[in-house]
Amino acid sequence: MEIYHPAEMLSRDEIAALQCQRLRETVRQARNSRFYRQRLDDAGVSPESIQSLDDLARIPPTAKQDLRDSYPDGMVAVPQERLVRLHASSGTTGAATVIYHTREDIRTWAELMARCMFMAGVRPWDVFQNTSGYGLFTGGLGIHYGAEALGCLTIPSGPGNTRRQLKLIRDFGVTVLHIIPSYALYLGDALAAEGLDPAALSPRIALIGAEPHSEEVRRRIESLLGLKAYNSYGLSEMNGPGVAFECQCQDGMHLWEDAFIAEILDPETGQPVPEGEVGELVMTCLTRTGMPILRYKTRDLTRFVPGLCACGRPHRRIDRIKGRADDMLIIKGVNIYPMQVEQALMALPEVGQNYQIILTHDGRMDQLTVQVELREDFFQEDMRALTGLQKKIAGILRDEILVTPRVELVQANTLPRTEGKAVRVLDKRGDA
Amino acid sequence: MEIYHPAEMLSRDEIAALQCQRLRETVRQARNSRFYRQRLDDAGVSPESIQSLDDLARIPPTAKQDLRDSYPDGMVAVPQERLVRLHASSGTTGAATVIYHTREDIRTWAELMARCMFMAGVRPWDVFQNTSGYGLFTGGLGIHYGAEALGCLTIPSGPGNTRRQLKLIRDFGVTVLHIIPSYALYLGDALAAEGLDPAALSPRIALIGAEPHSEEVRRRIESLLGLKAYNSYGLSEMNGPGVAFECQCQDGMHLWEDAFIAEILDPETGQPVPEGEVGELVMTCLTRTGMPILRYKTRDLTRFVPGLCACGRPHRRIDRIKGRADDMLIIKGVNIYPMQVEQALMALPEVGQNYQIILTHDGRMDQLTVQVELREDFFQEDMRALTGLQKKIAGILRDEILVTPRVELVQANTLPRTEGKAVRVLDKRGDA
Repeated sequence: MEIYHPAEMLSRDEIAALQCQRLRETVRQARNSRFYRQRLDDAGVSPESIQSLDDLARIPPTAKQDLRDSYPDGMVAVPQERLVRLHASSGTTGAATVIYHTREDIRTWAELMARCMFMAGVRPWDVFQNTSGYGLFTGGLGIHYGAEALGCLTIPSGPGNTRRQLKLIRDFGVTVLHIIPSYALYLGDALAAEGLDPAALSPRIALIGAEPHSEEVRRRIESLLGLKAYNSYGLSEMNGPGVAFECQCQDGMHLWEDAFIAEILDPETGQPVPEGEVGELVMTCLTRTGMPILRYKTRDLTRFVPGLCACGRPHRRIDRIKGRADDMLIIKGVNIYPMQVEQALMALPEVGQNYQIILTHDGRMDQLTVQVELREDFFQEDMRALTGLQKKIAGILRDEILVTPRVELVQANTLPRTEGKAVRVLDKRGDA
Repeated sequence: MEIYHPAEMLSRDEIAALQCQRLRETVRQARNSRFYRQRLDDAGVSPESIQSLDDLARIPPTAKQDLRDSYPDGMVAVPQERLVRLHASSGTTGAATVIYHTREDIRTWAELMARCMFMAGVRPWDVFQNTSGYGLFTGGLGIHYGAEALGCLTIPSGPGNTRRQLKLIRDFGVTVLHIIPSYALYLGDALAAEGLDPAALSPRIALIGAEPHSEEVRRRIESLLGLKAYNSYGLSEMNGPGVAFECQCQDGMHLWEDAFIAEILDPETGQPVPEGEVGELVMTCLTRTGMPILRYKTRDLTRFVPGLCACGRPHRRIDRIKGRADDMLIIKGVNIYPMQVEQALMALPEVGQNYQIILTHDGRMDQLTVQVELREDFFQEDMRALTGLQKKIAGILRDEILVTPRVELVQANTLPRTEGKAVRVLDKRGDA
């Protein structure tokens, strides 16, 4: 097996020793910010008091709201002239949060990103098309810098304009794509609509991420585009892309533990969940100087994949994101994650690329409706067959989520499509 | 005077010697591409035959069409695995053209860009907001890499969303903006509409370029935004931004002659114009390895500013771009450049930020109409005053362009506005 960086093969003991040492340094660095000096003083945490990784639990967790409250620069830990980059969330779920980077931070991030890409099989001679949006969002510039650090011929195509994306792929022999799952499905349909054979296209690898998606969606992307799709995980609070990535075993995402400490905690109690169980991912970045963040509550739900990966890298793997703690829907008193619905639907050959979950309240109780696109060849005039399929889907969903939904079957390409992130849930229960 | 790089102070003799040596190396490198091997063989130009800068004239010029004809990779001069970046024109004026860069090329470009910014007064402790579009277009990534190389805190805001741009400027104390002239005017109006005092805003420098504009527009931007605006020049065939920039004297743009050879030629004969006269800028990049381009006909019209700049940098200055050779309008047999119209209009205090040149043909002859936005306080009900103003503007334009236009006065903010490049000319003469 080829590796990009020696840190990939550190033993568990070496990782633990490095984490402890870097945690101490990070606590020292974080205390240069107004926010952490106060927070760590209040908790009685000094750099010297970090003696082992058990001391991590003494550091109070950091929430999204802490980032908002310290806007614009309460967590900055270096003099302003050392900062070279600012990223900001789009603020779709509230006020903007801002992350600052020094020159060293940008370099470290690019190297982590390059390591991820190499692990998924990307090489310097690859032609890499980045369909992420550039700018304040970290997906574009983050993976761009990684691809250039690795040495790929990088095409900064940005999002949208499908005809142009296809032209770039063909004209420049693109071998690796970075693409969000819902847009990959859209692109696959565009290929099919033009009667193009995916096997004849040059890309052999798609790097996917940024949207929770099921294994079934990954397999669809692979078959629609004729390539291998590798899942990835990142968030701007931990730089952006480049935090965890699948190796060629495609069995969980290795999280670079020389650069991050990951915990999986019960979102209610804040205590670690038993090994292998699902909880909230809580992360500490160990290499950032401009704005270190300690024990960040990501709201992302996942678990550690038990055991050692067949690839031999000792870095632990996280499972695909099950959804966000914030995404959980309570319907008729039952906890439901949209990903459960997707998983059940996408396993059915009759189901097309798009679906939508609609929640309403009829004055008495919650109603769950699932609109499902059928594939062209399954959408037929025979009402009996359609009614049978409707019942079958409702039954499969009930088995999965314990609530019986109303299922509406619609023709392919009739639900709202997007070249950006897909909107899978419409919660209209608050509407008049 | 502070300088960023010793090359800024090379004497004319040192520049000439360096250009000759680098031209020889560039010819050698260019011959690794299919296109230039053929082109240079046909012209009998070998690296060894370059003995002085006079030999430049023996190299046939390269036209935009040559780039199109060698699409996608006929001008690539290195093995593909050495390439790390591809930029492509939007293809608005025909088929796409593509420029490839190696890692060294990207580094050289970033350093040239940083040198430009420093010359305009930007320093590592500045907060820099880049409103250029990122992606395949070179304006975004080009200046982004330069700002990071210089060490500015770089905010990759990208274009559009004026409310957000203003929020970023205020919340992060932005001191330097990169902004195209038409959007700068738009932003200035947005400030005025919100009743904000430009002097109270933090930016002290705007880097403008990418659109031909007059000195009058620069002065308006400076007064609307309360800052100094520095003109710049670049084109993707010569990397992108970072080719020439104004120093703090604001009297022509220094062209980095250690990295480029510039000639100003008669677009018809291809012969040098007399010193100080306007002609087509023809450029050779001396530092690019991935895809060298020799004697590129930019179609941009300018002249060398005579004499030595007060700043003391020996690198020659080009005057603001007068327009493109392609932009020239022939109206009633007279050659007219849109920039002449702008220059005349923007000198008038009554005139607002927007205007449009409309060409029609009434079956017999060309008609030139100029629609002009008036400032709020000049647009009044008094028909006599308006008619007088109309006549005054028509007279001023006739004196400038030798054709009498029909002048239409319209209210402020009624002509089509854009957050992208302004469309100043509508030529409807070909319409049915």
